[in-house]
Amino acid sequence: MAELRRDPIAGRWVIVDNEHPNKPEDFEYEQSIPKGGICPFCYGNESMTPPEIDSFRDSHSAPNTSGWQVRVVPNKFPALEAKGDLNRRGLGIYDMSNGVGTHEVLIESPSHDKDIPDLLNQEVENIISMAHRRSNELIKDKRFKYILLFRNYGRAAGASLEHPHTQIIALPMVPKNAMEEIRGAHKYFEYRGRCIYCDIIRQETQEKERIILENKHFLSFCPFVSRFPFEIWIIPKRHVGYFSHTPQEEIADLASILKETIAKIKKIFVNVSYNFIIHSSPINGDDDIEYYHWHIEFMPKLMRVAGFEWGTGFYIDPISPELSAQYLKAIK
Amino acid sequence: MAELRRDPIAGRWVIVDNEHPNKPEDFEYEQSIPKGGICPFCYGNESMTPPEIDSFRDSHSAPNTSGWQVRVVPNKFPALEAKGDLNRRGLGIYDMSNGVGTHEVLIESPSHDKDIPDLLNQEVENIISMAHRRSNELIKDKRFKYILLFRNYGRAAGASLEHPHTQIIALPMVPKNAMEEIRGAHKYFEYRGRCIYCDIIRQETQEKERIILENKHFLSFCPFVSRFPFEIWIIPKRHVGYFSHTPQEEIADLASILKETIAKIKKIFVNVSYNFIIHSSPINGDDDIEYYHWHIEFMPKLMRVAGFEWGTGFYIDPISPELSAQYLKAIK
Repeated sequence: MAELRRDPIAGRWVIVDNEHPNKPEDFEYEQSIPKGGICPFCYGNESMTPPEIDSFRDSHSAPNTSGWQVRVVPNKFPALEAKGDLNRRGLGIYDMSNGVGTHEVLIESPSHDKDIPDLLNQEVENIISMAHRRSNELIKDKRFKYILLFRNYGRAAGASLEHPHTQIIALPMVPKNAMEEIRGAHKYFEYRGRCIYCDIIRQETQEKERIILENKHFLSFCPFVSRFPFEIWIIPKRHVGYFSHTPQEEIADLASILKETIAKIKKIFVNVSYNFIIHSSPINGDDDIEYYHWHIEFMPKLMRVAGFEWGTGFYIDPISPELSAQYLKAIK
Repeated sequence: MAELRRDPIAGRWVIVDNEHPNKPEDFEYEQSIPKGGICPFCYGNESMTPPEIDSFRDSHSAPNTSGWQVRVVPNKFPALEAKGDLNRRGLGIYDMSNGVGTHEVLIESPSHDKDIPDLLNQEVENIISMAHRRSNELIKDKRFKYILLFRNYGRAAGASLEHPHTQIIALPMVPKNAMEEIRGAHKYFEYRGRCIYCDIIRQETQEKERIILENKHFLSFCPFVSRFPFEIWIIPKRHVGYFSHTPQEEIADLASILKETIAKIKKIFVNVSYNFIIHSSPINGDDDIEYYHWHIEFMPKLMRVAGFEWGTGFYIDPISPELSAQYLKAIK
């Protein structure tokens, strides 16, 4: 019989198939194979993007020319723009406002074909440092309440450009999903006086069966209430609310665990597409949120979301996180 | 500049691109083209499914043989099973229970290649009548709190079998998404003393610009806060909480508006995959929910859900519902 598991944070139920679990070879997923062509994110094509916002580059190179290691540019087709104010207004029973925010693209390296596992550790650290720098800059604009960092890798994960990149969006409100997690974490904190994520880390570290990788500062594991097969969370062991508050000395550990985790997934599922999302605390709010703990949620695109998920907000996981972790651990 | 719109029910924000809207030909979607092969849902293959639960069939034909018009069978790989009880239990900070429920498949017609628009009106009415009959039967089991009916059409929408079918799942709890809508509708009812869906119908009927089709008992329109391009809702004009309480005399109107709406979508987007979900009131609860109004949410698969949507629970709609409705209205 299937097992129902309840997410202690958002209250979501997941149906885990323990009776006839899928094996890795049962997943028919769409492979992401680069097609090439002219790429606005490659060296020499810097003029194809809007002028750069920031970059790490050789000291003798000029902005918007080659010679950069990491480059941040405005999204050419931004979902939101940083002009004017919200101007909230009604239309009968409906509410609307202006799309105030920012939408930036962090081009992760000059290599068109190199995903995170193919980069040097130092190169991955550069991506993280630049993501921190942009976050800390955007926080200064008091109109923004949340900074969302995410990565769509491969067509099946919604990437429209294949050159690896991370998107950075500043939003004028705390998004629904973040609010749900924050409310769930808050309830737990009120009841127990502890961060629920710290308790998850404690339980996972004791039980061990869902852990994939661990280093001094970070843990990578398949969450007990995985929505998707081979879903993975990467979390700092020490309580930190904001992604951009990760101390300098922990960045190397984050880079290496991220790189190794993705490398493992891609060894089992060659050319798989994936999304990952950085879940961090809201910004510019009234209170310091001591009960939220930043982390990365990584989701390989092995299945399609369909009517059941849309109708319920619940998920059916055809392989338990315990089994997923076992496969991932076994891969060298 | 993009426009932000707030869903008055679930509180979700949607970013609508009014500045550079997509045209129908801009969507690169995966076409759903039947491949054929041996199909367990076709005439003559009745023994390939578990024994049937119910059917409409010629009076001289035996169960589990040909001669049926609509056939309901247990899902061969059920997400949930109707044996035992929930047995809720804890595991440290996590909660789990047994997967008690049912998972049935309603095979909509003997025709492997006929989608709803290709059927006769009477055949579509048969599907609806059987969906009612199964719902009314499942309600009798007091362990079930919600009945979810949904349809995945085409591979991109998650259909694993191409012969058109509807899935019927009975759940031992009210799903998260239904709960959100119910809470939102309840808040509105407490404040205004009216059903929010009735108010939406009133406003849409007055403004007219998002309406696609209308008959005596039903309305088909692109909702003001569409999450997806060409999202469509079909709703009874009269307040009815439960899908299965739709009176006999309204079924013909429901069948014809459903058939015509899908026909229009498929004329613009040839062989498009889609999901639709029947949103109905929970069952076997303590109170009669006078503020919820059943309806269908229809979502053609024109885009991929990616990091932004996963991270926020918000959506970016590259074409406004007003424009979508205009295209749909124009199609004869």
